[in-house]
Amino acid sequence: MPSKTFSVQTRGTFDLFEVTDKIEKIVRGSKVKEGMCFVFTPHTTACLIMNERESGFLEDFKKTILRLIPREGNYEHNRLGEGNANAHIISSIIKPYLVLPIENSSLNLGTWQNLFFLELDGPRTRNVSVQIFK
Amino acid sequence: MPSKTFSVQTRGTFDLFEVTDKIEKIVRGSKVKEGMCFVFTPHTTACLIMNERESGFLEDFKKTILRLIPREGNYEHNRLGEGNANAHIISSIIKPYLVLPIENSSLNLGTWQNLFFLELDGPRTRNVSVQIFK
Amino acid sequence: MPSKTFSVQTRGTFDLFEVTDKIEKIVRGSKVKEGMCFVFTPHTTACLIMNERESGFLEDFKKTILRLIPREGNYEHNRLGEGNANAHIISSIIKPYLVLPIENSSLNLGTWQNLFFLELDGPRTRNVSVQIFK
Repeated sequence: MPSKTFSVQTRGTFDLFEVTDKIEKIVRGSKVKEGMCFVFTPHTTACLIMNERESGFLEDFKKTILRLIPREGNYEHNRLGEGNANAHIISSIIKPYLVLPIENSSLNLGTWQNLFFLELDGPRTRNVSVQIFK
Repeated sequence: MPSKTFSVQTRGTFDLFEVTDKIEKIVRGSKVKEGMCFVFTPHTTACLIMNERESGFLEDFKKTILRLIPREGNYEHNRLGEGNANAHIISSIIKPYLVLPIENSSLNLGTWQNLFFLELDGPRTRNVSVQIFK
Repeated sequence: MPSKTFSVQTRGTFDLFEVTDKIEKIVRGSKVKEGMCFVFTPHTTACLIMNERESGFLEDFKKTILRLIPREGNYEHNRLGEGNANAHIISSIIKPYLVLPIENSSLNLGTWQNLFFLELDGPRTRNVSVQIFK
């Protein structure tokens, strides 16, 4: 079936915020009882993750990612002037999509699993598409 | 079609063990000739990987992951007392699912590709669901 | 539907080169209007990424991955003599597959999203399979 899309406005260079409800709403609207939900963002400096809605964790995640692949560095891509080489690298590793199970016409996630949009080079307006398969 | 599930009992804080046979059995039972197998674990401190069944590699993988994102550290999440912030971060990056090809009514993996459950905050009883699409 | 496959010849131990056109050709040939494209490589020392076609970024990606998980190191797996433990670890984290959206009978990627094969232990002949779901 055709994808449904929504937009988000990110804040700051690095931003991490929840999108579970927006995706769940599309899943429920599809009336698909059992299937797979494919969430995709068509950007090279953003990605999607799934984990716990806990402010300490969200801060730790950000700090750890930027410790491993810092914004500042001797990057070739940054000769182009955008300074976002690390955002491209992180998005390549973490991936700009998630695949999720649907059961009983709803996302069938674990108790602590929530869905987050990870902006790595904002602020920008970003798109997210949701496709459902059965 | 509805998912099939199985449980595993993990041992130790960090555990990495094979689940290829359990998943292959479900694939064969489905009688789907060509399709996709979606394996998902509904936890935020565990994930799934695919690679070689070789004890040296499995040890190297563990050591490398814990070198990059150590259990001990100045994590905000650990103020909650569980001490598992690194498990949440690793699961977010590696993902708690795998997508796999089915051909000739069987997982169509490479010669050296096997499937492993990665426990990051055990020991616990963990669930794994398998959905098949054609 | 059955998968379509193609082979690539990699050059050097570490190689990163584009495969967007080969995959897009298979998608267009399938005549599927809306769906999902599952690209899989059946190897444990290679993987697939999606990001920008920009030589500086491609160089930065290589350097960053090898800084975090270097070829040389005190790896158990390397007692087997192949010296490719880091390739197995990187492939396990980044994954040997991509899931991609199809819309209007074509890959529905973002403006800057292109698809790359990442060789981590070449040179070798590698296979890639493409399956399409609707």
